[in-house]
Formats: sequence, C-alpha cells, structure tokens
Amino acid sequence: METLSTTKAHGGTQYVYRHDSTMTATPMTFSVFVPEHEEGAKLPVLWYLSGLTCTHANVTEKGEYRAACAEHGIIFVAPDTSPRGDGVPDDAEGAYDFGLGAGFYVNATEEPWSANYRMRAYIEDELPAQIATHLPVADLTRQSITGHSMGGHGALTIALRNPDRFRSVSAFAPIVSPMNCPWGEKALTGYIGADREAWRPYDACALIADGSRVPEILVDQGEADSFLETQLKPELLREACAEAGIDLTLRMQPGYDHSYYFISSFMAEHVAWHAERLKR
Amino acid sequence: METLSTTKAHGGTQYVYRHDSTMTATPMTFSVFVPEHEEGAKLPVLWYLSGLTCTHANVTEKGEYRAACAEHGIIFVAPDTSPRGDGVPDDAEGAYDFGLGAGFYVNATEEPWSANYRMRAYIEDELPAQIATHLPVADLTRQSITGHSMGGHGALTIALRNPDRFRSVSAFAPIVSPMNCPWGEKALTGYIGADREAWRPYDACALIADGSRVPEILVDQGEADSFLETQLKPELLREACAEAGIDLTLRMQPGYDHSYYFISSFMAEHVAWHAERLKR
Repeated sequence: METLSTTKAHGGTQYVYRHDSTMTATPMTFSVFVPEHEEGAKLPVLWYLSGLTCTHANVTEKGEYRAACAEHGIIFVAPDTSPRGDGVPDDAEGAYDFGLGAGFYVNATEEPWSANYRMRAYIEDELPAQIATHLPVADLTRQSITGHSMGGHGALTIALRNPDRFRSVSAFAPIVSPMNCPWGEKALTGYIGADREAWRPYDACALIADGSRVPEILVDQGEADSFLETQLKPELLREACAEAGIDLTLRMQPGYDHSYYFISSFMAEHVAWHAERLKR
Repeated sequence: METLSTTKAHGGTQYVYRHDSTMTATPMTFSVFVPEHEEGAKLPVLWYLSGLTCTHANVTEKGEYRAACAEHGIIFVAPDTSPRGDGVPDDAEGAYDFGLGAGFYVNATEEPWSANYRMRAYIEDELPAQIATHLPVADLTRQSITGHSMGGHGALTIALRNPDRFRSVSAFAPIVSPMNCPWGEKALTGYIGADREAWRPYDACALIADGSRVPEILVDQGEADSFLETQLKPELLREACAEAGIDLTLRMQPGYDHSYYFISSFMAEHVAWHAERLKR
C-alpha cells in the first residue's frame, strides 16, 4: 500500500493511499481520515461511497466530514467509484453514467467489463482486508456505511447484503432502485446483462423484497434535486421499508439540490448518527 | 450584478455573483454565503481573501465556513484574487505568483498592469458598494476580514489601512511582510515599481511601523508549511506588533501545512472569534 499523501487536518491525519487491487486488476486510490487518538487505540470505521463521476477526492475535499469524525473518533474511508487506468474499458461515448467513474458497486459479468469492474468484491472484501492489514488503528468489528447517489445505492445494497458487518447504514440522495431508473437500467444491463433477475442483488428495494433486512436506515434527500423524480425515487424505498418493517427515517430537505453543498450540510448529522450506533 | 448560482447549504444560501467592475475594467466573480435569517434582518459580514492561484471557488468548496457562519449568523464574502479575462495581461511565463490569480491586493501603477490590477480599490471600495446596493441583508456597519497567504497579507493590510471599517482581522498563514520575501518583492516590483518606499502601504509590518493600528490580530500558522521560512515569516509580524503594542495571538500549529486542510481545520475558530467581535 503506497501512501500518496499525508496531511494534518482537524487534529488528525488525512491520508490518500494507492494499492494494486486483485479484484479490479488495477491500482486503486482511496482516502482515509484518522482522527487524533491515543497510541494503540482502535477506532470505528465509516465507509463513504461516492456518486457518478467522483473519485475519492471529491468528498475528501468538499464533504466536510473531518470535524465531525474528529469529534466522534471515527475513521472515514472514501474509495474510488470505478477501476481506472490504461486498459480499463470505458463507455464507448465516454458517458458519465457508465464505465469510468460509474462502477455502480457491482461485479460485472458482461464483457469487456468483467475483468476490471468488480467494485462489489473490491468494497466488500478486498479493501476491508487491506485496511485490516495496513491500518491497525481501524476497528473492523465496528463499521458503518454511507454514500451519495450511486454511492448511496452502493451503501444500501452492501449493507443489506452484509447486515452482520455494519452497525448502521445511511445515504444521501441514494438511487434506491436501479432496476427502476435510467441510470440503473443502463448500468445493470451493461455490467450484468439483460436478465433482470440477476440485477436483484444490486437493488436495495429488491433486496428488501427478497428478505434482506437491516434494523434502520437514515436517508436525506433534497427536494430541489434535479434527479429526484427520474432517478432517485425515495418513495420506492419508503414502500419497501414499510412493507418489510424496516425503520426508515427519510428526511426530505426543502431547497437542497444533488451537490456537495447538500451532502456537506448534513454530513455532520450522519456522522453523529453513525457514531451513536458504533459506540453502542 | 448577475447571479451565476444559488445553492442551498447549511440552512442558508451559497451565491456566486458576477458584475462588471469599473476598478478592474473586467467582469469579476465572487461568492457570498448568507445564513438563514428572518425577513428584514441585517447580518454582519466576514470577508475572506484568497491566496495565490485561487478564485472565489477554492474556499467556497473547501473552506468549511458555512456551518460556523450559519451558527453565528455571519455573511461570508469571497472575492477573486485578480482580474481575469481576454485582454488582461498575465505574467510573461505564466508564473503562478504574478499576474492572473496573483493580484496581491494592490493598485498597480506600472504598465501594463495599472489598467486592470486594481484589487485594492476593488476590495476596499467597489465590492463593498456593490454589496451595499444589491444585498440589503448585509450590515456593512459590522465587517471583519480574514484571508490566507497572499489573502492574509490582503486582510492585514486592508484592515490596517481601514481600522474604522473592520471590527476585527485575522489571517491563516499570511505573508506578513511582502517587502521581505520573494513572492512580495516580485509582485511589488512588478505592480508598483522599484521604489520600495511606495511598497509600504502594502506591507503589514511596514504599515504598523509607520503608525497604523488595530487593537488585536489572530493568526494561525502551520509549522509544517513549506513556505513558512522563505515567504511567510510570522516572526516579523510578532516583532512589529510587540513594538507597536498590538495584541497579536499567533498560534503556531504543529504538523499543519499550507493547504485548505489547514485552513478548514481552523476556520470555525476564526469565524467564532470574529463573531464575538462583530456582536459586541
């Protein structure tokens, strides 16, 4: 694991690392904020999965999570959104919503994607193992997960598939049902193929319908988000959770859009919410 | 005044405006954060002047000031660092420390700079007048000022020349004496000419030596800042303030560099410090 940068911030350290991923067959870059802590301490970990077009850098620069993570003593991990580099295939037309920057947190089975686009395996298995090995300060018995938009989809589906791994899950303006929106249908068709049954492990609402459970979910959604009605559709998550008895707190936030101004406005509340659950 | 963007954030509104500046003879872009407030309220104003290479956008995205400004009810104004656009002269070699992005908050007298590079007049006179006209929520009887690096130099010199305008002044890693560092000597020679006496209004330490006074100054400076010894030299400000009886709080911050990670780590404390003085 190569350290690309080490920067003091909010009393702790903001790291950026790169490592050669077996799952994606590429180098992968991610950031980790480690609050100030006593030697030998073990701190819980909050994962943040980013949205379309982002790398680790967007939330690291604009997410405003460090003050809250420093206050609550939480490590914040921000992975990239896709494999990158020479030889990694991209959308033929360079679309922002497929290929580079748009891995959708799936294990692709279709060609030419399956060799690199394995973000599910990367986030679920490989990166936690890397962190366990190289960051002994991280207490992987206490993990929570959140994310934005495509990354909110990632957080919800990964938490629903791995309820024992995460103490809590939240999301900012998540894609709650990729099977029922243009972004998701394009991505899942491309990466997984035309068989919609094979998409269900990558759809939070379908996972819940099929029996996956988490005790509760916190979602913030801007009412002025231009993707609200066409792509995000939080009402589908509300219905799925109501049906399944999952305690969903869905906060519709008047006036907020889809940007980091929205994310950063509610980041401290999400960190505090996870902190409460990570410390139980 | 043209509104380029209006984005809800931290309960308030982050604006970006553009207007045609008479002083710089160019369009100028700046950002303003206005916290949530009651109709008809008047809120105090904190000016933030940015450093070399920055536009209004850097601190707007990375400065982490909105939560604190929302808490304390303070408007935050972030201007650009130079005129820009077709016909605005730039450093012949495109250096980062002269010309575009490096206006140094002076009124240039040398050619070809004097037509556009009038950032002193822009910040001291024109932009406050624009804000008074177009943003009635701004209470310009209560102003404070801060800035980073070149913008710390701007904040200190503008406050020292206008002690009646500002309730308080602080800085992050400021250039405290442009007359005594390579960045400053290059800029002042280029914009003002070879006569060093003419530079004194643009040097915080020289202004203090020449009799300018503010009651107190807050400065944070990272000890791991790579520009500390060659360009920033906070000890010169310490000496000037000690000589003049100015109450300088100079906090040397171990491990911090010159980046926005440093600025954002202490932004909330600066906002709170100014808030206390703006509300007296």
